[in-house]
Amino acid sequence: MSSNVNISMSVIKRLPRYYRFLGKLRDEGHLRISSGALSSMMGTTASQIRQDLNCFGGFGQQGYGYNVEQLYNEIGKILGVDRMLDSILIGVGNLGRAIASHMEFEKRGIALLGIFDKNPSLAGTSIKQYKIYHADQLKEFCAEHHPKMAIVCTPTVSTEKVIDELVSYGITGFWNYSHFDILSKYPNVNVQNVHLSDSLLTLGYQMKNNC
Amino acid sequence: MSSNVNISMSVIKRLPRYYRFLGKLRDEGHLRISSGALSSMMGTTASQIRQDLNCFGGFGQQGYGYNVEQLYNEIGKILGVDRMLDSILIGVGNLGRAIASHMEFEKRGIALLGIFDKNPSLAGTSIKQYKIYHADQLKEFCAEHHPKMAIVCTPTVSTEKVIDELVSYGITGFWNYSHFDILSKYPNVNVQNVHLSDSLLTLGYQMKNNC
Repeated sequence: MSSNVNISMSVIKRLPRYYRFLGKLRDEGHLRISSGALSSMMGTTASQIRQDLNCFGGFGQQGYGYNVEQLYNEIGKILGVDRMLDSILIGVGNLGRAIASHMEFEKRGIALLGIFDKNPSLAGTSIKQYKIYHADQLKEFCAEHHPKMAIVCTPTVSTEKVIDELVSYGITGFWNYSHFDILSKYPNVNVQNVHLSDSLLTLGYQMKNNC
Repeated sequence: MSSNVNISMSVIKRLPRYYRFLGKLRDEGHLRISSGALSSMMGTTASQIRQDLNCFGGFGQQGYGYNVEQLYNEIGKILGVDRMLDSILIGVGNLGRAIASHMEFEKRGIALLGIFDKNPSLAGTSIKQYKIYHADQLKEFCAEHHPKMAIVCTPTVSTEKVIDELVSYGITGFWNYSHFDILSKYPNVNVQNVHLSDSLLTLGYQMKNNC
């Protein structure tokens, strides 16, 4: 496998999708797949798949295609699912609770160390195996456990202050469900924004315009 | 405003983001903004913004920029937030419950008519103002109320059967949180997939490779 430097963000963003489709193929018992069959499943082109995977050294064999299990594992390694990233989750509203309950963090290389909320009645309770701490304990917790990534599920009105704190405590990556624009204030951290309403609005447009 | 036919999907997908930024500017009391200032806020180019908005007839005035309130309202109209799309939500797990509680459907042009789950103990209860019905009532409900869009929060194992039913009851659009690939079976419906784990995996990659 070649070095991962200088891979474009558009290629990186497609890797989770390859990983998802290959995981499904593997679960269904498929042993190998051609780039043509994979591209047809994924609604892309065989050439795109070959080009993308060649960024990481290429994995297919001419006339054989891809070994599903091997390619799944290799892409998993590229995505780093085998190296746990220490993380915390902030904000136990409906959304924070759903994410903590629903996501299979460990399978995605994420070690969720703790959950924080300012509601004192939640402190000491848990969601699945994840313990909830009071927001006042955040600074001390970060000094002790050094999490690097935060899942931000706080209401818009309080998010900026929370982000300021988290950056000062050493958080360098944000999975951001809030509408606060983290990168405009902290351009050197890593951010993936999840704007659920954007895809709902797009679907609404498609439905109303018969796209 | 010109007709919305033949607008490319990539332009359409950017509209919700314009809508979001303009809503924020409006809430902050800004009356007008230049395409340069808007593009700098959004991390894009002024030329991109002008090109995108010209697809819908263009709204700016040379030397003045855009009237924030007017542009927000016009993009809202293009997205159809003023025309309610009758919808249902299927599956009251943690995720379904979070989406029903968290999303401001009406502001996005969505009328959520009802929620369905196969758990009989949930039938008759509500999430916010939205009533939960037993899954057995789905066919009759659709025959009476004719919803067009479904929010799919069912577990992967049961999703295909649910989608088959929904298509047969006249649903033509899906906001899909499941991993089932709806378009591969029903290529003529509208689908927006939300794969939360994709952006988490992308963030993990960025963090581990110092992108």
